[in-house]
Amino acid sequence: MSLSLNQWTTRRWTVTQAVDGCVRHGLEAVGLWREKVAEEGLARSVKLVREAGLRVSSLCRGGFLTAGGLPGEEGRRAFAQALDDNRRAVDEAAELEAACLVMVVGGLPGVKPGEPLPETATGSGSTTGSVAPAGFSRNLAGARERVAEALAELAPYAGERGVKLALEPLHPIYCPDRAVLSTLGQALDLSLPYPEEQVGVVVDTFHVWWDPRLFEDIARAGRRIASYQVCDYLHPLPQDILLGRGMMGDGVIDFRPITRAVLAAGYAGDVEVEIFNADIWAADPDQVVATMKSRYEDVVLARP
Amino acid sequence: MSLSLNQWTTRRWTVTQAVDGCVRHGLEAVGLWREKVAEEGLARSVKLVREAGLRVSSLCRGGFLTAGGLPGEEGRRAFAQALDDNRRAVDEAAELEAACLVMVVGGLPGVKPGEPLPETATGSGSTTGSVAPAGFSRNLAGARERVAEALAELAPYAGERGVKLALEPLHPIYCPDRAVLSTLGQALDLSLPYPEEQVGVVVDTFHVWWDPRLFEDIARAGRRIASYQVCDYLHPLPQDILLGRGMMGDGVIDFRPITRAVLAAGYAGDVEVEIFNADIWAADPDQVVATMKSRYEDVVLARP
Repeated sequence: MSLSLNQWTTRRWTVTQAVDGCVRHGLEAVGLWREKVAEEGLARSVKLVREAGLRVSSLCRGGFLTAGGLPGEEGRRAFAQALDDNRRAVDEAAELEAACLVMVVGGLPGVKPGEPLPETATGSGSTTGSVAPAGFSRNLAGARERVAEALAELAPYAGERGVKLALEPLHPIYCPDRAVLSTLGQALDLSLPYPEEQVGVVVDTFHVWWDPRLFEDIARAGRRIASYQVCDYLHPLPQDILLGRGMMGDGVIDFRPITRAVLAAGYAGDVEVEIFNADIWAADPDQVVATMKSRYEDVVLARP
Repeated sequence: MSLSLNQWTTRRWTVTQAVDGCVRHGLEAVGLWREKVAEEGLARSVKLVREAGLRVSSLCRGGFLTAGGLPGEEGRRAFAQALDDNRRAVDEAAELEAACLVMVVGGLPGVKPGEPLPETATGSGSTTGSVAPAGFSRNLAGARERVAEALAELAPYAGERGVKLALEPLHPIYCPDRAVLSTLGQALDLSLPYPEEQVGVVVDTFHVWWDPRLFEDIARAGRRIASYQVCDYLHPLPQDILLGRGMMGDGVIDFRPITRAVLAAGYAGDVEVEIFNADIWAADPDQVVATMKSRYEDVVLARP
């Protein structure tokens, strides 16, 4: 296993700066984000990572497939748009020769990430599983079915282009608005109908550390593990729960048993550090990378 | 199934006021809290509920058993104190003829509910599963073992007194500081070695709505379901995540399928409404109970 910088950890850095930073700090891999690649230009991003000799450990991210759960024409259009966007993401991942395309599948239809719910029509039938009048749906089972349907469309497309879709279960706090995939076991079950070169799963310590079935499901996942991402789980969480990710060692996660299990499952890819954290984003990116390297050695790596 | 007021929903009310309120609103059952019972006096609380003809649908709460994971004498003392306190809780539940004693099992050893972590000694071996120098432990598996050990002590004690311990899985957001029991399946597995009159599980919609195995585990739980508690899951969560519980219909939960599954599993007890919410606590308790009743009819009850 080798350490990789997910570029969102040093969010201020462009692709050029992140690639230079990886080289300067002796890293062999980088995890890229589509927004940043678009800013830099896809062709130039490809050239940068090739010339630097870096592996692209992941491209973040595809997904947001559940809007198709809205009714009628709106739902059909949203689903078609999501599929189109994901095909573009697959194409980009193919160009970058990324080890996988990370998929954050989306929350309840009509619930926007981090935003208040649309006004609900309480007590007027809004909890029947059908869509609430005000534009969102509480039909969680239905949203999960939409994800499976989308995967049936996207997996062969990805397979033809040599891209592996990596289904990322997110911590259940993000179930309303970001991902109806909430456990590793659930993500794994969704991946099983497809060849393991087409669909895998992400083990991100922040999202799965609490799961009582974690070690069983890591073992069960085996070679389906497409990406191992690490960061700590802060306590208490900050007001913006999206930013509750911390540098390894600053939170409550005991990393070594998880690392050991991921290794034992047969994972031989890079270990990406992906941290969303206001303080870390405000800090000097070179200092962040230096701290990340030492914490990786001290806290994450499981030596025999 | 019959509606019950968990008295923390009308937090300002004493036991006397809660009992009067239930009678005034035609409810047949009340869920009591130990703090409130202690304020009123146990004997007087017993007399009040008997004279009013109310069932006590639950007593909240025992638990906080994981402090025993601290090392040495401190851990042994904490574990012994927790067992003593839980035996008192069982005795109180027996006096009140409560349908169950709700058990919130506790978080990581040394992590205090809602408080910042003790200063951590990052990178100095604090993640080896042993206790960090500054007084908390990241050993989640060990904390879960402490719960099982405590249960082996408490279940027979409860059984002799005709009290059922109800293990409550809490949403994974509370894993660091309140409950290392994070899923219904995990709670159920922990209950299985004991007779179902001694140890059951709580299904609280707020805590379990997101769980991909929810319906499977409700069915598997069957008669082990000792309590069905309802309230909604607000989105976004407020800054104090403990207060993210909302009146049914105000959040993202689709209640009817869950109610239907709990009924189909054979649950025939009361349905408690337990809401921690600053706005609801500030409102007129009689209005809260009236709203609770109408929302229960409109949103929670699953009619054929």
